[in-house]
Formats: sequence, C-alpha cells, structure tokens
Amino acid sequence: MRNIPEHFQINSQGHLEVSGCDTIELARKFGTPLYVLDETRIRQNCRDYVAGLAEGYPDTQVCYAGKAFLCRAICCLMQQEGLGLDVVSGGELFTALKAGFPPEDIYFHGNNKSRQELEFALQSGVGCLVIDGLHEVELLAGLTRATGTEKRQRVLLRLAPGVEPHTHVYTQTGQEDSKFGLAINGGQALAGVKAVLNSPHLELTGFHVHIGSQILDLASYGVTAGILARFLAEVRAETGFTAKVLNLGGGLGIRYTRDDKLLPVREAAGRIGQMVREVFSPLDYPWPKLVLEPGRSIVGDAGVTLYTIGNIKTIPGIRKYVMVDGGMPDNPRVALYQAVYEAVIANKAGRPAKEAVTVAGKTCESGDILIRDIPLAVPESGDILAVFSTGAYTYSMASNYNRLPRPAVVLVANGQGDLIVARETYEQIVANDLVPPRLCAEEPREAAEG
Amino acid sequence: MRNIPEHFQINSQGHLEVSGCDTIELARKFGTPLYVLDETRIRQNCRDYVAGLAEGYPDTQVCYAGKAFLCRAICCLMQQEGLGLDVVSGGELFTALKAGFPPEDIYFHGNNKSRQELEFALQSGVGCLVIDGLHEVELLAGLTRATGTEKRQRVLLRLAPGVEPHTHVYTQTGQEDSKFGLAINGGQALAGVKAVLNSPHLELTGFHVHIGSQILDLASYGVTAGILARFLAEVRAETGFTAKVLNLGGGLGIRYTRDDKLLPVREAAGRIGQMVREVFSPLDYPWPKLVLEPGRSIVGDAGVTLYTIGNIKTIPGIRKYVMVDGGMPDNPRVALYQAVYEAVIANKAGRPAKEAVTVAGKTCESGDILIRDIPLAVPESGDILAVFSTGAYTYSMASNYNRLPRPAVVLVANGQGDLIVARETYEQIVANDLVPPRLCAEEPREAAEG
Repeated sequence: MRNIPEHFQINSQGHLEVSGCDTIELARKFGTPLYVLDETRIRQNCRDYVAGLAEGYPDTQVCYAGKAFLCRAICCLMQQEGLGLDVVSGGELFTALKAGFPPEDIYFHGNNKSRQELEFALQSGVGCLVIDGLHEVELLAGLTRATGTEKRQRVLLRLAPGVEPHTHVYTQTGQEDSKFGLAINGGQALAGVKAVLNSPHLELTGFHVHIGSQILDLASYGVTAGILARFLAEVRAETGFTAKVLNLGGGLGIRYTRDDKLLPVREAAGRIGQMVREVFSPLDYPWPKLVLEPGRSIVGDAGVTLYTIGNIKTIPGIRKYVMVDGGMPDNPRVALYQAVYEAVIANKAGRPAKEAVTVAGKTCESGDILIRDIPLAVPESGDILAVFSTGAYTYSMASNYNRLPRPAVVLVANGQGDLIVARETYEQIVANDLVPPRLCAEEPREAAEG
Repeated sequence: MRNIPEHFQINSQGHLEVSGCDTIELARKFGTPLYVLDETRIRQNCRDYVAGLAEGYPDTQVCYAGKAFLCRAICCLMQQEGLGLDVVSGGELFTALKAGFPPEDIYFHGNNKSRQELEFALQSGVGCLVIDGLHEVELLAGLTRATGTEKRQRVLLRLAPGVEPHTHVYTQTGQEDSKFGLAINGGQALAGVKAVLNSPHLELTGFHVHIGSQILDLASYGVTAGILARFLAEVRAETGFTAKVLNLGGGLGIRYTRDDKLLPVREAAGRIGQMVREVFSPLDYPWPKLVLEPGRSIVGDAGVTLYTIGNIKTIPGIRKYVMVDGGMPDNPRVALYQAVYEAVIANKAGRPAKEAVTVAGKTCESGDILIRDIPLAVPESGDILAVFSTGAYTYSMASNYNRLPRPAVVLVANGQGDLIVARETYEQIVANDLVPPRLCAEEPREAAEG
C-alpha cells in the first residue's frame, strides 16, 4: 500500500517528488525546516471549488479564507484564480492590499474588530464587512458619520445558527454558546438586522455563518441552509428585507490521515451547492448568491513540511524517538488539537515502512511531539522527513518559541520552486528588542549570525 | 477579599498599579495588548533564588531559563543580578551575545541541537554544553577536531531520572519515555558517560536533569537528587569520574490562581537546597556545585497583560462574552495547556466583582478563549483588562496568527515604564513575503499602514 497522498510522486532515485520537484533538492537548496506548497494542487483545489459549487447552485462565489495561510504571493494566486478573499484582521487586509488584491473582492471578518481596523477597512474600500454584533454597528455608525461619505458600506451580518458539527471543541463555531455571531434563537439576530437596516451608512446585503472547521460530514451545511432559509423568511416578513447574499463560510475538512474519509473538493462543493438549492427550490424567495470561504481545503493538502532528522534515541522496550529540526513552533496543531499527521522519509520514499517511531521536535518542551507511533523506513541522521497536509494553520500559527526562526515557504510548480516567504534570521528575531540605559552597564559585545 | 496578587497596588483613582506605574497610563502610552513586566519583582525573585538556594546548600549557582521569556534587556538584567543563563537554541544564544551576556556563564541545552548551533556555541565560547545523547557526542567530536583547538569544551550530560511529577502531561520531562536525556535505568546513561569521558575534546563536569514544569510539590526534587546520588556513586565506581556540577534544571511553579498553593521563592529554593544537602550529607562524595535553572518562577508572576475590552456579547441564559484585542496569539497557554488565569478590570480594580463572564480573544478561532467564567466588575467597552501571571511562556510562544502584530513589552520599575520589545508593525509581518514574477500580473497597489 502506497503511503503517500495521490498528488505526490516517487522519482527514479526513490525520492519524494511534488509537482515535478525533488523534495531532497528543495531541502538542499532552501534548507530545513521548509514549508513546501504545491501550486498545481492549490490551483486545482480553487478550480474544483469554483466549478463544483457552480454545478450545484446557480449564483456562486468562492473566497479564500486567508487565516489558513496568507502571504502576498498567495493573494496574487487567488486573484489569478478569480477567488475573493476573506480576511480577519488589519494585518491580513494589509497583506492583501500590499499584494494588489482588489479590495472590492475582500470580505472582512472578526468577532472584535478594532476601531482602527474598521477605519482601515473603510478607507481601503473593502467590498464587504461581516458585522459581528451591535457593538460594531455602533462603531461603524460613528466612523461613517466622521468620514462624511455618501457611499453606504456593504455589510453582511454574522449569525449563530445553533449548529454543532462533530469536530474538535476548539473548532466549533456555529453553536449558540459562541463568541461569534448573533443567535437566531431568542431574537438577537433579528434585532441585529433591524439595527443595521436603521443605520443610514450601512447597506445590508445578506448573512454569514461559519459552523466549524475540519468538517467531514457535509450534512451540517444542509441543516444550516435550512435554518437560514427559515430566518430569511422571518426577516422578510418582519422588515421587508430580502437577502442578496448567503455566505456559508468555510470549514470543509481535508485528509490528514487515511482514516479521514471525505469527498473530492469538486464533488463536496457540488453537494453543498445542491443542498442549498434543495432548500430554496420550494420557497418563494429570490435565490441569494451563495458564497463559500474555504481555507484549509484550498491549501491544506497542497502543503508538505520538510525536516532534517538529527538525534535518534532508542529507549529499549519503550520507544524510538526520531528528532527533527523543527516542531511545535512551525506546527502547533499537534499540541493544540491533538492533530494526527502522516509522514514519509523523503529520501527513502520508495522503501517500505519498517518500524513505528515517534517524531519529536527540537524545542525544550515535552509536548513538542509531531507524530506518535508512525511506521517509517529505517530512519538515520541526515534523512529528510516529509510531513503531509501541512499547508493550512502551520505557518499562519507559527511562533518563535525557543527563539527558532520561522521556516521559509517555497511554492512549487512544474519542476520549479520559488521562495514566497524567506526564512527568518536571528537578526529579525531581536530586531524589536530595546535595552533601557539603566540595564546596560557595558557596551554590548558583537554577536555574529550563528 | 482582595482579588489581585500581593505585589500589585490599587491607586487613588481605583486603577491597578504595578511598581508605581498606573496600568491605565501604560495602556494609553504604549497601546494594547501590552505585556507589562515588573522589574522590581523580577529582581526580587532572582535575589530570593540566589539567597534561598545558598541558605540550603554550600555551593550554588542560579541560571535563568531564557525560554520562559527572552529579549536583550532581560539578558542584561540577569547579568546585573549575577545569574547564569540557560539557552536552548542558536536564536537564544544570539540574543544573549547581542546583549553582551558573558558566554562563559551560559549553559546551552537542547534535545536536537543542529551542527550549526553547536558550531556557533563552540565559536562563542559558551561555558557549558548540556549534551543530550550520543549523536551529539559524535557531532561535537567532529567539530572540535575540525577547529583543532586545544581547549576542551566543558559539558554536562543530560539524564532521564525516571521521575514523573504531577503536572500537565506536556510538561513532564523527567520520565523515561521522554525525548530528553539518557535513561539511568537500563544503562544508557552510563554508556553516555563513558563516551564523553573517551572524547579527547570534551570535559565532563557533571550532570543535568529537568523533571518538569509548573511543579508545586517540591518533594520531586529530593527524590531526583537521591536517584542522582546513587548514579554518581555508580559512575565513580565504574569509571573513577567524580561530578563537580549537579544541575537540577528548573520547573518550580508559580501562582496562576488562588488555588495554586506554593511556598515563596526564597523558601522553596532553600528547601530544594536543603533536600540535596540531606542526600549528600551521609555520603562519602565531594559536594558537587548545585545549579538551578528557573524560568517561569523568575518572570511569571512579574508579568501582567493589558487588553482593551471591545465587543461584549450577552447570550441570555447562557453566558456573557467579553472580547479583548488580543488572545491566543499573545497567550497560547490557555489553548495549549488549559491554563487558568485570574484577571481584573484595571480601571475598576477597586470595585467588587459583580458577575462571571468569559473573556474571549479576537482571533477567528473558537478555541481563542482566555478565561472562562471569571468574576469581574461590570465590564464596558473601552475598559482595560489586566490578566495576571503572564510573564512566562506568553511572549516567548506568541504567534502572528490572523496576522496580528505581536504586542510590545514594557518593563516597569519605580514609576517608570520602558519599552524592552517594540510592538510589531504590519510592515514587519509582510517583510519576508516574496512574489515570484509569474504570480504578479500587475504592479502591486500601495497599501498604507492601517
């Protein structure tokens, strides 16, 4: 049984290959740890989303959720693929604008946007603000009054539909006991609609929900669409407002291990579109535009992280630890969510797995374990370990814990690999350090980059 | 009952004060989120460690474990207090050297140091390398041969004593099934000793253990010292080697909440010294120097994080969410370890707690909850929330998740607050982003700092 995902190859030297690039060459050229993103796969995922959703539903838009992985190059790629962009902070908006991403195709989310962020969004001409609560309506009213502009800012209102898909408790977002959204049950959502409709500088175009992350059971989307349709009818009856946009957020899972059973992206997007169509078909309601905001399922399985194996420690009768030159700082998902990954020794990709080992990271932290009990070919110091499905929520959540520089990111396509994020340097890690005079008895000694 | 730690004050305006600084003034001057470190408290903790340990044991050294929180200013402060420094990576060593910290007072740790890091350490004249396994002995042999120096590098050997203190599973490090150290049971440690003694360029001076983190039951240190003493006798009998240094690592807990019962630092350090003295007193073995490496218990309770409260969301019958302008990116310990913190509304520090609320962070992540069900004075938008005991493992583990800039760090003493880490800018977050020409159809638009 082949133990690598379908879109990877093994070349004639027995090395793991991605989009025509030998991963061992990439590790040699760019160093490790190294995040590698398969551009071909990302583009295919984008196209499958766009095509699949359109097959299921008449009027659709796909936006990339930048929080999964964002940098300037990815913004450019999403623009080329015709996707919109979902940003969740001033920093993400700044990145998108720096990349020349059209602001009118940006949705700005967040449960607690600051006044500065809202100001930045308004000034930048962001296409749509996704309002999360009455506090934000008030902030926006003040800001739009202050700018004195005639233009009404288009907004969606985020709702809490009361749906709890079966995922990790940290990644459930649609239930009522959530920091996100206004609950449909109990009338908070309806009160929110009225507040927005009464705000002369805001133009309500529809609603947003996000029910969770790494969702493998698509039925949750259908249930959610049904709840929203009933709410839309209630809103129309109460206020006369008809929604033009229904944004169901993201949340589609990816295959982290062979135990994760899921549909291919195109089919999954099609099924979601179809479920929403089935909800609206019998209703006397104009078809709203259906928006999806996938993040993980666009970039997640396109990513692979390369590490160099260093220390190997065998504890007789207990366990073999294989230690790599990164870990928790470049991939906190294992410690955060007990995430499980699959991996292969990239320079021995063609060889059968011989023994179960535990892959440990290099930080001084017992929790810095990347993979427990994974079967690998016999590991040796200097081997390159490739950990699959690391395109999402790794670089974006990375830290400098232990003052480790964050790895570089390389985008590969058709045999070519290009840096899209340069490796951090030690100089950058201390760049913001300041020493008040009272703490410095002597002149600091010179330290060379190690 | 006063709900703030003893070394904080409430001033005449009812504001929380730390070392003579009004936290509301600090928030106004430096912005939020803001890490505030009480220099007075850090220095007191340092002095209590040094004095306490010396009261319990004849020959002692205290080193600060930089992984808890490191920047150039903290290195300078530790040097002024006469502490040694424990670093765990090239990046931490670089920081220390940049601050002018004397390399001879540095211990370099790590379960998987790279060849580059070892080279950097040797070239910098690091006082002591803490070797973790035979792989490192081999790497060092090659490197010292290559440099051709006559000087022997002083080293400690890290042992796994087989002790499991009762702490979070992620923070247990002394047990045998660990990526750290050579197990005493089974003979791996003894084999390691022989390998180091046979290496002509290494000078073994003793042993290191680290049994865990946030330890509240000091008895574990006594048990560990007993195990080590038996091992020392065995090593002497087998090889004739006598250890000059016994480094028991760090791990002492701090008070995160009023439920954490622990001794004051001076007394705790004294008790640890006393326990080691009691182990060695009856033995015919020269007293080794006793080294402790506290991190959390030096800086942890000296830290407080200030946030501005923004959105407040009441879900009738369920919960009130109070949302702040930071969260999981500046303090991942809640999501990682289910850590529990106490907090107060800093501008209402004198008022009684009125209601239990849940403090949520600003990232688009359901797991971004800082504190569940904490009693606070009635919160309003614009209030400043102070979260206590955040000096350790917050900034050092911080990420740019959601592309949020990392907060500034201010060191306060005697009414004066000085930046020791400047706030990150959006420009810094995109500084390493690169766009391959094929991804850029157009020239990027200009984006202003938001």
